[in-house]
Amino acid sequence: MARGKFITFEGGEGSGKSTQVKRLEEFLRGEGYEVLLTREPGGTRLSELVRALLKDEHEDPPCDRSELLLFLAARAQLVRNVIRPALERGVWVVSDRFSDSTFAYQGYGRGLPLDFLEVANAFACEGLTPDLTILLDAPIEVARERMRRREAATNTSADRIELAGDAFHARLREGFCFLAQANPERIAVVDASKSPDEVWGEVCSQLKRLS
Amino acid sequence: MARGKFITFEGGEGSGKSTQVKRLEEFLRGEGYEVLLTREPGGTRLSELVRALLKDEHEDPPCDRSELLLFLAARAQLVRNVIRPALERGVWVVSDRFSDSTFAYQGYGRGLPLDFLEVANAFACEGLTPDLTILLDAPIEVARERMRRREAATNTSADRIELAGDAFHARLREGFCFLAQANPERIAVVDASKSPDEVWGEVCSQLKRLS
Repeated sequence: MARGKFITFEGGEGSGKSTQVKRLEEFLRGEGYEVLLTREPGGTRLSELVRALLKDEHEDPPCDRSELLLFLAARAQLVRNVIRPALERGVWVVSDRFSDSTFAYQGYGRGLPLDFLEVANAFACEGLTPDLTILLDAPIEVARERMRRREAATNTSADRIELAGDAFHARLREGFCFLAQANPERIAVVDASKSPDEVWGEVCSQLKRLS
Repeated sequence: MARGKFITFEGGEGSGKSTQVKRLEEFLRGEGYEVLLTREPGGTRLSELVRALLKDEHEDPPCDRSELLLFLAARAQLVRNVIRPALERGVWVVSDRFSDSTFAYQGYGRGLPLDFLEVANAFACEGLTPDLTILLDAPIEVARERMRRREAATNTSADRIELAGDAFHARLREGFCFLAQANPERIAVVDASKSPDEVWGEVCSQLKRLS
């Protein structure tokens, strides 16, 4: 039984990740693969509890270092109990966010030291890296407009991280681009300002990297 | 205004930490100091939520790496929002457990790599170390007997970590002793098999290290 492939989607809020994750899942199932969808932070009971700590606007929001360590705790549990066992069973795993988000948000966004992030993330993942990462890259105006539409359509409001200002989101985008430059064999940058169908076409053509 | 002192108590379950923490608090208040008592994991709203994740016997107990990262997340929040601001205001801080417990439990106990623990703990604490650590050291039989009495008296049952076997607790004790040998200027080892009054007398005489 061949080991499954591990594909992650990355990008800022409003980059259209959820839509593309869903399409990829359907496509892979159609091709006869067993697929496991997961999201970060989350994907295990413990990690969903951690997600609630991170997302909620509660009285005691995590400081930057605590936030990083909570993300990594959720990831350690997800890798150990879900992702790695699935890959070993031959299942393909598609994750909405993974390690690159930590480098972008906590490293480039919040300014935590990248060398520590590198070591701590490798510890949390026990060295697991994705086989392919799709980075959905969109200018901030496009992303903001999508987030506004989503909030109107679902009657929800932005969470703590989504509410951070434009300067933060600019650093984030820059961070993702640095990561893509540093890992060209793993990370494929896709222009997410196009229509969902056009983006999906581009995602499909990037899947060839896996064969 | 002089910076407050930071005193931590360490030792296995049943070593009598809570009793001695309480006596030290009363003693310091009697001497005219402002005192803040805290415990690990805990001491902030976020950290108490993390404590609940760690202590509960829930469906999805944290894997070793997740457990470590959750402890460190709780500590980062406690140091940043509680301990450091208090010390800067001149308050003396007494903590029931701190970093040494991480080295003993997750390093020596669970076998996670000590060099990573060193780096990750320094990150979580932003370099803060206690001015004095009292290590309450007791043979395992003494500790087990105290835990049994406490459970009978309070009608509670042992939690996940307390339930670990004797071999784990032996490694733990050995870990604490290594730490004390490596940090003799900071860690004072007190024989915790004696009576509470005798132990308190010993704790008092160790306070002289702070002047």
